Amino acid sequence: MKSELGEFELIQRFFKTGSETMLSSGAHSISLGIGDDCALLKPNPAETIAITSDMLVEDRHFFANTNPEWLGHKALAVNLSDLAAMGAKPIGFTLAIALPQTDLAWLEAFSKGLFTLAQEHSCPLMGGDTTAGPLNICITAFGSIPQGKAIKRSGAHPEDDVWVSGSVGDARLVLAALRHELILSQKDLNAISARMHKPTPRIQLGMELRGIATAALDISDGLLGDLKHILIQSKVDAEIFLNRLPKSVTLIHQSEAIQNEFAACGGDDYEICFTAAPDQRNIIYDISKKLHLPLTQIGTIKPMQSSKPKIKLLDQNGKALSDSKVAPLLKSFDHFA
Amino acid sequence: MKSELGEFELIQRFFKTGSETMLSSGAHSISLGIGDDCALLKPNPAETIAITSDMLVEDRHFFANTNPEWLGHKALAVNLSDLAAMGAKPIGFTLAIALPQTDLAWLEAFSKGLFTLAQEHSCPLMGGDTTAGPLNICITAFGSIPQGKAIKRSGAHPEDDVWVSGSVGDARLVLAALRHELILSQKDLNAISARMHKPTPRIQLGMELRGIATAALDISDGLLGDLKHILIQSKVDAEIFLNRLPKSVTLIHQSEAIQNEFAACGGDDYEICFTAAPDQRNIIYDISKKLHLPLTQIGTIKPMQSSKPKIKLLDQNGKALSDSKVAPLLKSFDHFA
Repeated sequence: MKSELGEFELIQRFFKTGSETMLSSGAHSISLGIGDDCALLKPNPAETIAITSDMLVEDRHFFANTNPEWLGHKALAVNLSDLAAMGAKPIGFTLAIALPQTDLAWLEAFSKGLFTLAQEHSCPLMGGDTTAGPLNICITAFGSIPQGKAIKRSGAHPEDDVWVSGSVGDARLVLAALRHELILSQKDLNAISARMHKPTPRIQLGMELRGIATAALDISDGLLGDLKHILIQSKVDAEIFLNRLPKSVTLIHQSEAIQNEFAACGGDDYEICFTAAPDQRNIIYDISKKLHLPLTQIGTIKPMQSSKPKIKLLDQNGKALSDSKVAPLLKSFDHFA
Repeated sequence: MKSELGEFELIQRFFKTGSETMLSSGAHSISLGIGDDCALLKPNPAETIAITSDMLVEDRHFFANTNPEWLGHKALAVNLSDLAAMGAKPIGFTLAIALPQTDLAWLEAFSKGLFTLAQEHSCPLMGGDTTAGPLNICITAFGSIPQGKAIKRSGAHPEDDVWVSGSVGDARLVLAALRHELILSQKDLNAISARMHKPTPRIQLGMELRGIATAALDISDGLLGDLKHILIQSKVDAEIFLNRLPKSVTLIHQSEAIQNEFAACGGDDYEICFTAAPDQRNIIYDISKKLHLPLTQIGTIKPMQSSKPKIKLLDQNGKALSDSKVAPLLKSFDHFA
């Protein structure tokens, strides 16, 4: 369905209304939303503002026929996931979107998915830009963290535990089924398809981990590849028990090779990988119980052995896995590779 | 030239280095830049943060063969222009960019244009995202304004003067020449081509106008169309002297019809249109002198006569122009029209 809606009507109809409710609820310190040159944010002097920006491109981050409601959810979720990884509480977001045409049904569904998630986290749309062009969604999200409490990638210490939330590999399994790399029953696909299409940003977890995790990030490009960023920033190595990676019941029905590859290197799960001192274990298990979210200790941070941080993969007995088993796993997703 | 650079190398090589100098200069309160899940901004308790986001799409906002150095400049300039319109001082920006390929020469030039302007305004790159996809540049820029000093669109009062900075219509004239709608000598084109390709964000002007302008915005879609946004937000009408619109020597050599149309409705000039009480005139002329920037009083704000804000165009004697003269001018640029 095409329409002759102008840009300003479009913003008004699909994007402005959803946000005004939240802005006027005064949940945060936004003093001016859509309708001026800039949004205005009055920060609380005791907070640091966390800022993250993600761009989603058709055929790269989602299929052209993706359900627009899922897409609206996911475009915001991947940004909230970055906020979660630093322990930030969402404040609001800006949306810049290029649309090939003004398709009212598509916009209706997209904004429903977007604002349902935004509402869940009291995270209003503060401003943005709409233009014609190949479909591209760019969200910049803002969060607040008490001063000095941000969980950075650079804080991991030797002998810290390495943890991961939820389970990993399901989003990659859905992708494999959609790409016909393997066959998944409709029941299995239904059970896990939300893991790829409607990821859950671990906002509560991030906030609980303030002062407990020494480093954290969200897993968008695959657990091992992303863990490397913590190792690089913290100047440490890691040992990971391959068999400890938490997997869903659905993934466990796949071959061992697929289980390992997808759990270790599959992208798009948006779980949190974090490190913490071993004396924090009980507190972390309490957080897990409180949030009804599995948290699994998968390995240990080690002192750096050479100039390049290294991940040693271990079998269940703590013995290093052979290179032939490891090699196919270590190619992590890279947008330009 | 194609390359196999990965995403992280790309950020490192073209975007990270340029920013670290600025971040470490401590010009602003950015405590963590590129290399983590989020950038961290420690705000000053006496400031409000202004946030703006603009997306530039190939063939929509720039030609496919645009000089990438100009493009890097312009992508940031249009965002700084939004900060200027509210009286904000730049703090930093995030860049999300989709690239069809990794073209090193293109990236080199793009980042040169981008960082030259960023440096001029002590406005470092704080973070962002790079991905493969049809060329799309999305910048979100941040500025600071002393609490309560933001110049909003909603503050214009009846009998305020309407002002515009610099001159208007040149960017549209360059576009017309590039589209072969008219012929411009190479000398004329050289004289004004920067007005379209390398617009100057009026940052200093915006900061000087704090507490003086009652309303302001930047002119991206055409003077009259953009002025309407002030009228809508302020619930007022305006009278504008068509002959007073400030034009460059180059534009003045065109026919009267083109002069009027381009000055009144041409987009992309990124001048500031603002309103101020008549008793501020001398102060405004002093600002003009100080900044070596013409500031022209082009009309007056009037009480709103009907439910829809209206602009009355006047001839040099203050007489309303006939509808037949006005009608072709009032179609302002709209991205989805």
